[in-house]
Amino acid sequence: MRILGIDPGLRITGFGVLDKQGQQLHYVASGCIKTPDGELPGRLKVILSSLGEVIARHKPEQVAVEKVFVNVNPQSTLLLGQARGAAICAAVQADLPVAEYTALQVKQAVVGNGHADKEQVQAMVQRLLKLSGTPSPDAADALACAICHAHGGMGLGALATKGFRVRGGRLV
Amino acid sequence: MRILGIDPGLRITGFGVLDKQGQQLHYVASGCIKTPDGELPGRLKVILSSLGEVIARHKPEQVAVEKVFVNVNPQSTLLLGQARGAAICAAVQADLPVAEYTALQVKQAVVGNGHADKEQVQAMVQRLLKLSGTPSPDAADALACAICHAHGGMGLGALATKGFRVRGGRLV
Repeated sequence: MRILGIDPGLRITGFGVLDKQGQQLHYVASGCIKTPDGELPGRLKVILSSLGEVIARHKPEQVAVEKVFVNVNPQSTLLLGQARGAAICAAVQADLPVAEYTALQVKQAVVGNGHADKEQVQAMVQRLLKLSGTPSPDAADALACAICHAHGGMGLGALATKGFRVRGGRLV
Repeated sequence: MRILGIDPGLRITGFGVLDKQGQQLHYVASGCIKTPDGELPGRLKVILSSLGEVIARHKPEQVAVEKVFVNVNPQSTLLLGQARGAAICAAVQADLPVAEYTALQVKQAVVGNGHADKEQVQAMVQRLLKLSGTPSPDAADALACAICHAHGGMGLGALATKGFRVRGGRLV
């Protein structure tokens, strides 16, 4: 099963693609979509079309999108909502099922701690996917979201209670 | 010039299409897109695909989208932002230019009063477009947004100072 994870943002949208074969996860691709300064519609178009290209190229079967958190500034929340709407549109337009996970769920699944910091997420994503280098924070968040979905949205602790073998913070 | 006006919402998205010929406005179509209860991605898909059908059928050249206002509830603001993002995606996907107007600008342009109530907007839209019946509130807001765009985003007062003839609250 091929999973596309998305960490949506108006300025930078991270994406990450991985394959799940049994309990094994294999990295396929990841990157960041940066929108130009300017009017909102043009920026949403970049998110929609760039994610459309990622989907056309890598042909994921399922999509996992991080739930953005509500900002103290309502205008920022509204802008972020619109970026997230564009990201989800790219997926539903390709008739892909979309699952949503909070940052807490994603960090719990990948680091085993819902309040892990960015560096911990990057390091665990690198280890879990056996990457040679550290992914950028936005790509790492997107890959982490895909990993969370691959694990059925459950943290490693939950997986351990279900008979999966977890050692050193990872599935073995 | 054919203009599509959109009043985006997660539950109900109003749309209205009109033609501008010189200073004359002609009604083409209007309606409401209602999303089913359920998960957000499915609801965004209905907004995206339904507006896509409206665009395919009526072939507007320009799109005007009402700026939604920020709710006191941040979660509602986020949901509304995502619905608005899906509406804008339908337009940019068809390579249409998108203009944005606040409710204040729209009401100023149509009623001459930025704080007009829904009934006043419905009544003025009916008069300006010579409709036989009163449009629903959501369709009226969308048509009002298209009228605002047809007037260059200006209120009738501003148009009067530019040499347009305004009588009885409308262009003559």
